[in-house]
Amino acid sequence: MELFSEERSAEVVAASFGEAADPRLRHVMTSLVRHLHAFVKDVELTEAEWATAIDFLTRTGQKSDASRQEFILLSDVLGVSMLVETVNHRATGDSTESTVLGPFHVVESPPREVGDSIALDDKGTPCLVSGQVTGPSGEPVAGATVDVWQANEDGFYDVQQPGIQPAGNLRGLFHTDAEGRFWFRSVVPRFYPIPSDGPVGELLAAAGRHPYRPAHLHFIVTAAGYRPVTTHVFVAGSPYLDSDAVFGVKESLVRDVPLVDDPARAATAGLDNPFRALTFDIGLLHS
Amino acid sequence: MELFSEERSAEVVAASFGEAADPRLRHVMTSLVRHLHAFVKDVELTEAEWATAIDFLTRTGQKSDASRQEFILLSDVLGVSMLVETVNHRATGDSTESTVLGPFHVVESPPREVGDSIALDDKGTPCLVSGQVTGPSGEPVAGATVDVWQANEDGFYDVQQPGIQPAGNLRGLFHTDAEGRFWFRSVVPRFYPIPSDGPVGELLAAAGRHPYRPAHLHFIVTAAGYRPVTTHVFVAGSPYLDSDAVFGVKESLVRDVPLVDDPARAATAGLDNPFRALTFDIGLLHS
Repeated sequence: MELFSEERSAEVVAASFGEAADPRLRHVMTSLVRHLHAFVKDVELTEAEWATAIDFLTRTGQKSDASRQEFILLSDVLGVSMLVETVNHRATGDSTESTVLGPFHVVESPPREVGDSIALDDKGTPCLVSGQVTGPSGEPVAGATVDVWQANEDGFYDVQQPGIQPAGNLRGLFHTDAEGRFWFRSVVPRFYPIPSDGPVGELLAAAGRHPYRPAHLHFIVTAAGYRPVTTHVFVAGSPYLDSDAVFGVKESLVRDVPLVDDPARAATAGLDNPFRALTFDIGLLHS
Repeated sequence: MELFSEERSAEVVAASFGEAADPRLRHVMTSLVRHLHAFVKDVELTEAEWATAIDFLTRTGQKSDASRQEFILLSDVLGVSMLVETVNHRATGDSTESTVLGPFHVVESPPREVGDSIALDDKGTPCLVSGQVTGPSGEPVAGATVDVWQANEDGFYDVQQPGIQPAGNLRGLFHTDAEGRFWFRSVVPRFYPIPSDGPVGELLAAAGRHPYRPAHLHFIVTAAGYRPVTTHVFVAGSPYLDSDAVFGVKESLVRDVPLVDDPARAATAGLDNPFRALTFDIGLLHS
């Protein structure tokens, strides 16, 4: 093996991965080493900065547990999660664009019937959420799985507040009807901060960045024969739509949540009239 | 803020660090984001690979504790530690080249008198280690601090085996005499594996890389008015000199450890004659 030198550091270290049995591992590690060394050389990273980075990364790992994933948060605020999602799910035509999964899809959503309420904590502004899942030719997709989750009025997901929120609050797994439609009762999503009491919060504070995400509702939609989509619907007019801490906003995913005056529909939905309504139709691609 | 897009991902995320009060943080994070996004795009990182990376980094943090620093190991096997050391300590003229600190300088070395033994565990082949610390004009540096540490015959540093090795085994803090000289009794260093029972060991195994470091003795030499140097002396002929797991070897740092037949010196040193001797002179630069 060639000995290490500043000039050839990336080549020397990359070569050490040249014998990996898996060609993909070889390719990924070689590229990682080249970019990592280029970064260190570009900024001439000091030893104190290196030590700060080691400590930061260590604490990021140690902050993580079953209900808190600080490394996903780090990936999120560096735009890496959004980039990985985007390069793996390039939307075409009328298909729904994807966005970040986020760190809070950590439990199975409870199966629910179309029309059920997912709001179990009696907080927030009631809202009827509905939509239709269609394929590339506009054909309705019956029996599609629609997995949804959102933060509550106080800005927390149920898994962040065990014993405070009812388990499964604002989380549900639905199946579309024969026309590809789904609907359920929830509350109007609110903006909220990502957890900022860990290393990632320190980074945001040092960078003068706020930790907020604009109001949104998460979706994962899957159906046999179609490519799954992981996405959000964002609430038009929400603060932070133009400065999402995790870079998740796409114009095509923003929807109004109008006040609807429709006594018959309110009665069917079990809501007082008038009521807020969020409509989000989802276009899938064939797999 | 401009919304995220695949094409402009690095620019959009880098801009989010544009308001950091500290210009250095701004510069470092902007560069990090550009290189990190370039890496993800180059390899088109899959979601499964991303999830593997999140898990790997999390476990790397969680494997670390007071006597084990898995992130330093990761930095070491990716050649980052060596690169940071090198860009911050470019040797010139006859000054001694630097190499990696490594993860085992985690305690203060015990102060010792010149001539003391640092080998407290009655293992290994006795060896007289000596040298002279000089400045750029060859002037002896009296009162220089010479901090040394090495692994024992079984391949472990004292801090890795609390309760098994005597505290401070194979570790010592010396001061040079009026002629800039130091000497102490130790054992001939042996090659050893870096800890491979954690995530970094998994990476090495997957890459078909061995975890071994060639035989060496660590030094940090400091003196008022001079630039400190962190380095090793490597034993000529040791296995793995051409494939150090952490890329620490430099030709200028390799020394023979001959068998010396010198009854008078053996008697002074408290060693049986003949004995092994490792000589390592250290050249400092002015600060």
